[in-house]
Amino acid sequence: MSASSRILNLAVIPGDGIGPEVVAQGLKVLNAVLPQDVKLETKEFDFGAKRYHATGETLTDADVEALKQHDAILLGAIGDPSVPSGVLERGFLLKLRFLFDHHVNLRPSKLLPGVSTPLKGQPEIDFIVVREGTEGPYTGNGGSIRTGTPHEVATEVSVNTAYGVERVVRDAFARAQARPRKKLTLVHKNNVLAYAGHLWTNTFAKVAEEFPDVTTDYLHVDAATIFLVTDPARFDVIVTDNLFGDIITDLAAAVSGGIGVAASGNINPGRDFPSMFEPVHGSAPDIAGQGKADPSATVLSVALLLRHLGYEPEAARIEAAVSADLAERGETVRSTEQIGDALAVRVAG
Amino acid sequence: MSASSRILNLAVIPGDGIGPEVVAQGLKVLNAVLPQDVKLETKEFDFGAKRYHATGETLTDADVEALKQHDAILLGAIGDPSVPSGVLERGFLLKLRFLFDHHVNLRPSKLLPGVSTPLKGQPEIDFIVVREGTEGPYTGNGGSIRTGTPHEVATEVSVNTAYGVERVVRDAFARAQARPRKKLTLVHKNNVLAYAGHLWTNTFAKVAEEFPDVTTDYLHVDAATIFLVTDPARFDVIVTDNLFGDIITDLAAAVSGGIGVAASGNINPGRDFPSMFEPVHGSAPDIAGQGKADPSATVLSVALLLRHLGYEPEAARIEAAVSADLAERGETVRSTEQIGDALAVRVAG
Ligand SMILES: CC(C)[C@H](C(=O)O)[C@@H](O)C(=O)O
Ligand SMILES: CC(C)[C@H](C(=O)O)[C@@H](O)C(=O)O
Repeated sequence: MSASSRILNLAVIPGDGIGPEVVAQGLKVLNAVLPQDVKLETKEFDFGAKRYHATGETLTDADVEALKQHDAILLGAIGDPSVPSGVLERGFLLKLRFLFDHHVNLRPSKLLPGVSTPLKGQPEIDFIVVREGTEGPYTGNGGSIRTGTPHEVATEVSVNTAYGVERVVRDAFARAQARPRKKLTLVHKNNVLAYAGHLWTNTFAKVAEEFPDVTTDYLHVDAATIFLVTDPARFDVIVTDNLFGDIITDLAAAVSGGIGVAASGNINPGRDFPSMFEPVHGSAPDIAGQGKADPSATVLSVALLLRHLGYEPEAARIEAAVSADLAERGETVRSTEQIGDALAVRVAG
Repeated sequence: MSASSRILNLAVIPGDGIGPEVVAQGLKVLNAVLPQDVKLETKEFDFGAKRYHATGETLTDADVEALKQHDAILLGAIGDPSVPSGVLERGFLLKLRFLFDHHVNLRPSKLLPGVSTPLKGQPEIDFIVVREGTEGPYTGNGGSIRTGTPHEVATEVSVNTAYGVERVVRDAFARAQARPRKKLTLVHKNNVLAYAGHLWTNTFAKVAEEFPDVTTDYLHVDAATIFLVTDPARFDVIVTDNLFGDIITDLAAAVSGGIGVAASGNINPGRDFPSMFEPVHGSAPDIAGQGKADPSATVLSVALLLRHLGYEPEAARIEAAVSADLAERGETVRSTEQIGDALAVRVAG
């Protein structure tokens, strides 16, 4: 493939609820921002509630093989109240994170000008969370005995490996080093979860030696939630385990403008498998099909996707466009499509 | 013991940092509020960093026996940077919660008039969290192999029993039923932690049948953190597991006036063992000995202690006093002792 005809081979999963609406805008902006010489090839996949109800399938081996043929995956949202809690989450979302070894779950939080926050005084918020994506209490290790009886015992096992912790900690240090403030905070609960905590804390200290210019910091997860509302400006880069990362990134999204603008990447940094990019928000079935969903989180996820594939200027252009759009948005209520159109015009311009 | 000479036999653990300062005020207010016919007998225990450094002990069998001889325990704070993380937490605080079967960890959150919150618009906040205190990932079950090598595997096991979950869920339902709004929210992560989640969710549904007048609700822990900052008024009573409870109660404290006013009770509802009451805040060594600490959280913990022992009018008087004091506090900076004095005057008057 010559430099004059690059191909971006994208798997697209619109999914459930507002997923298709926001993904359409994400693709619109992607098309508008891509250089002329890049050919975007997309293939749509029908994962989600509808397919599950029709076939009982969430993600087959053949699906996995098909997804593997792509440079990256753009996902809208998966989930519907008609499907029992956990079926699509574990059968699709988490399954893919594990199969494609998405060990860097990247979630930036930036309170953009003009965006409202539930916090007083419009604090400076600009940090990223590097959440481990393939270990911890998310491994599905656990079980129950005497299930359904008064003597039931149910366990969940958090599995943490030196291999898994070290690679994500190193990734976070590298990201911190590349940012102006160069500060990395480890979030864990090492005073209680002593075995996992010991591994995380020691690995963090060890990898820190390779990054002498990065300032380091440790917070228990409970204290981290306090600072996220009382002093979010203290954070630059956070690295944390799968479950703590799940919790603090929702809180981080809430304080930095809401899940309407929170993007995320499920990243395999070595590109052994395609990485998957998705808004943090869910399928929001209550507003689906009404053109009310804000596509900004999906569009920002497209920026993360482009950055991951090496299209840095294009990623930056999308982020600038969303930022400018939000700053000028004011009280105007626009449809999903209108916002997408406005962003497409901005990135092209 | 005749009704005219009741005895309140209290174990007092001042602890580290600001612990002794705030406990002194807690006792002052307790003395002021107790009816004439109640004789307060206190015995002080020296647990904490100093004792640990001197003897290597955190809590001996003899200590446990001595503590058992009391009606309740009032704790200031335990912890000091000079002690490795986890030693006092696990060797004292958690050990006592487990030994004395403190399965109801009660943490009220109320944003009192005049108290500042990091949230915009001074929302209505008045809920209690019933955190399970003796199970979940706090059991210390776990381990590591190949520790310190690149092949280390460290695990933490969350242990959940029908017995343990049902009793705390039933306690929370009863508390919800006794409140005007009668609403109980279960917080868990049942879409990912499927085994524990199944036990919690099913137990919750089963116990709900005994409380038909209580409205129920379920939130994933990540979503709960969002609502705690965007719509805390939606909560009345929350019941949750040990780790989720740890995290959301710190966040709850932060949004409802800070840990300066957050009280907690480690409760054994059947009074098989003494319950322990303590402010949510830690030992704050940076401000220790300066008379700067706010004793309100300790004083409010004394109110929880009195309520647990059946002194409801006295508990209510303390809460009213703290509320009035905070409302009138304004910008005045008062010492720990001055606040304690003011509260003692109010509860006596
Ligand atoms: C849907 C759920 C499995 C998922 C998670 O817990 O990781 C979601 O909350 C997220 O943060 O991406
Ligand atoms: C000190 C620590 C063991 C404790 C906990 O995690 O329970 C504290 O954070 C709390 O919430 O009481």
